Amino acid sequence: MLCVRAMTSPSLSHRALKTPPSPIRRLAGLAQEASQRGIKVHRLNIGQPDVESPQEFLDGVAGYREKVVAYEASQGSQRLLDSWCRSLNRDYAIGATPSQMLITMGASEALIFAFMVCCDPGDEILIFDPTYANYIGFSAISGVRLVPLPCSIESNFAIPSREEIERYISPYTRAILVCNPNNPTGTVASDGELEMLIAVARERDLFLIMDETYREFVYDGLRPRCIFELAPKDPRIIVVDSLSKRFSLCGARIGCLLTWHEELRKAAFHIAQARLSAPSIEQAAAAHMLDTLGPLYLGAAHAEYRARRDVAVRALSRIPDVRTYAPQGGFYLLAKLPVGDAEDFATFMLTEFSFQGATTFVAPAAGFYMRQGGGKSTIRIAFVLNQADTEQAIAVLAEGLRAYQERRAGRPADSL
Amino acid sequence: MLCVRAMTSPSLSHRALKTPPSPIRRLAGLAQEASQRGIKVHRLNIGQPDVESPQEFLDGVAGYREKVVAYEASQGSQRLLDSWCRSLNRDYAIGATPSQMLITMGASEALIFAFMVCCDPGDEILIFDPTYANYIGFSAISGVRLVPLPCSIESNFAIPSREEIERYISPYTRAILVCNPNNPTGTVASDGELEMLIAVARERDLFLIMDETYREFVYDGLRPRCIFELAPKDPRIIVVDSLSKRFSLCGARIGCLLTWHEELRKAAFHIAQARLSAPSIEQAAAAHMLDTLGPLYLGAAHAEYRARRDVAVRALSRIPDVRTYAPQGGFYLLAKLPVGDAEDFATFMLTEFSFQGATTFVAPAAGFYMRQGGGKSTIRIAFVLNQADTEQAIAVLAEGLRAYQERRAGRPADSL
Repeated sequence: MLCVRAMTSPSLSHRALKTPPSPIRRLAGLAQEASQRGIKVHRLNIGQPDVESPQEFLDGVAGYREKVVAYEASQGSQRLLDSWCRSLNRDYAIGATPSQMLITMGASEALIFAFMVCCDPGDEILIFDPTYANYIGFSAISGVRLVPLPCSIESNFAIPSREEIERYISPYTRAILVCNPNNPTGTVASDGELEMLIAVARERDLFLIMDETYREFVYDGLRPRCIFELAPKDPRIIVVDSLSKRFSLCGARIGCLLTWHEELRKAAFHIAQARLSAPSIEQAAAAHMLDTLGPLYLGAAHAEYRARRDVAVRALSRIPDVRTYAPQGGFYLLAKLPVGDAEDFATFMLTEFSFQGATTFVAPAAGFYMRQGGGKSTIRIAFVLNQADTEQAIAVLAEGLRAYQERRAGRPADSL
Repeated sequence: MLCVRAMTSPSLSHRALKTPPSPIRRLAGLAQEASQRGIKVHRLNIGQPDVESPQEFLDGVAGYREKVVAYEASQGSQRLLDSWCRSLNRDYAIGATPSQMLITMGASEALIFAFMVCCDPGDEILIFDPTYANYIGFSAISGVRLVPLPCSIESNFAIPSREEIERYISPYTRAILVCNPNNPTGTVASDGELEMLIAVARERDLFLIMDETYREFVYDGLRPRCIFELAPKDPRIIVVDSLSKRFSLCGARIGCLLTWHEELRKAAFHIAQARLSAPSIEQAAAAHMLDTLGPLYLGAAHAEYRARRDVAVRALSRIPDVRTYAPQGGFYLLAKLPVGDAEDFATFMLTEFSFQGATTFVAPAAGFYMRQGGGKSTIRIAFVLNQADTEQAIAVLAEGLRAYQERRAGRPADSL
């Protein structure tokens, strides 16, 4: 009796039960099983690039010479703060100094800090829907309500108009959050659109949180933009940045928060003190990299992603009844498939289908949509495989789509 | 006009304004200024040991061979999960498997996860006061109310009795949080006390969160205890652990959360997914270290901390009117000084005092007390300097105390 009682346990918090699993990582187990069955799985599902990290970062790791792996300062190592500001000012001339910067564990932590210092539980942040799925996780953690402003594939996920945006602002709205270039849509805001967002934030007394993780990945002759170029030192703007994608350093967990709002930076710093510091070795290596890396690395990465985008768009546009578009930035795109339920299709690809020993793992886009039923027929594709593999992966996807439709039509699929 | 408007900004959230700065790090600026004036600052204020990190960890860093620093799994790298469980089971035979473990960014993140999955905003966690100051930061972040149960230096900060504890349990109490061995008091719970805590948690349907960061640092013949030895696989217990202090790896930011509560682990895992993963390079190096490190490292570190404790207690007990005790574990102790305001004294030490070109930096203990006015005359000392330096630092402290008292008495202090 006592033993049974001992093994019961109190229930969890409501927020624990409300925090959604990552939709991007949800099907990972099925993919692993497929691999174990000997099937080659082309992974277009997650933003983990295959591009090599800069040798300068790896040199920084190998050159780590401290005898004691000590805490770094809660704000970040002085050397990394200095070198990141230098690098930002060289590219964007925004006049950043370490006093405006806080080093964080990836953009993720910077966003959590931003949510917490801007909003109390129940306050609202406006986002464009579909959105980066983990924003939904951050909102569950921080108790912030995300208010989704619908964007659609029919208009290539364009930034909504000012009237549209203002219609969604309520007395509880505290901030507008924009991922530019956007994950998952690849939309890039024009200067005019950025100026409109700044004007709305100013007039409606809101914070503008800019997630610039993909900043340099803009195509078709567009110029990368840091929002502080258009609104120098504006204290209502918070820029969140990350080394993860730009330098293929997802596992380093190094990001930052940049703001000229002194009180806000201080409050974020107090939260940062509670978690002590970001990892020391990656900070040392990142500073070494930023101090020594020439412009060629990023140029090559940029060219590679643009080429992959072109390959992906071309290959997808050849599949009947698939709707997509050429994203102007980032390294994702959404594609609407001729299926009723993209998650069922993605599961089919991992559990029932293979073509010449291979299958393709795509992310169902429903997890990126906040509105009920959004993105049900849509998938997200990441440009994380080299051009040949991307082409091959989409060819397999096309075969899978045909097999799936045939199965649904009751005919035996000859590729099974 | 527009320009002025542009430069205003919305106010911060209440929780941002409520998050306290770290009391441990508050005086750091003054210490830096003292150093810049050429004064040698003995730093007894922060738990950053001078003990060298294991060579096996540094070898793991230098041996990192990945070309792409990729995301790790959100739960943690399989290799680190395996090796940490093996190491725990070897020392404590608790039968841990990776299914019960989540790798986190230090114990800090594990505690934030535990607060969030156990409590909704407004729920309560019982703590013993004084407490680890950053728990107060975590409570501000998570909206959890910490309810302080007073402990006193007069009883050497003993664990309160069952009756005492039960008196503080309310309908909102969701968990009891115990740091064992304790930071900042050094108190070690006996088996009887641990069993009492388990019994209270079971009978009152509470979670028991055990912060075992300092687990191996127990002295005077005590045996290190993992609570799961006494309550195998009890799903209401959450153990939070860290490599920071045990292996002098504070800057690696590698901790873990261990629980047999499957639903709880899953909820914490969903939060972990939102922040993607813990740093990859430190995880690889930590796994390498746990797989290859012999028992000598920890034995030597343990002996060193015990010797430092003895030196510190002996030196302090020689200073007139200082009250302290010999802590049975951890690497801190509290000492009550014959001063009205220990923060004022600590500031004096950094700004006005030096003895033979040196001063001593101690942490005012008030920041570790939740109850109003608690610890006002008390300081925390960390055993982070070698024996000779600890002895020297406390000798300087004694001189400083004399000078401070003389100044207060209106006499010119001859050491100024």
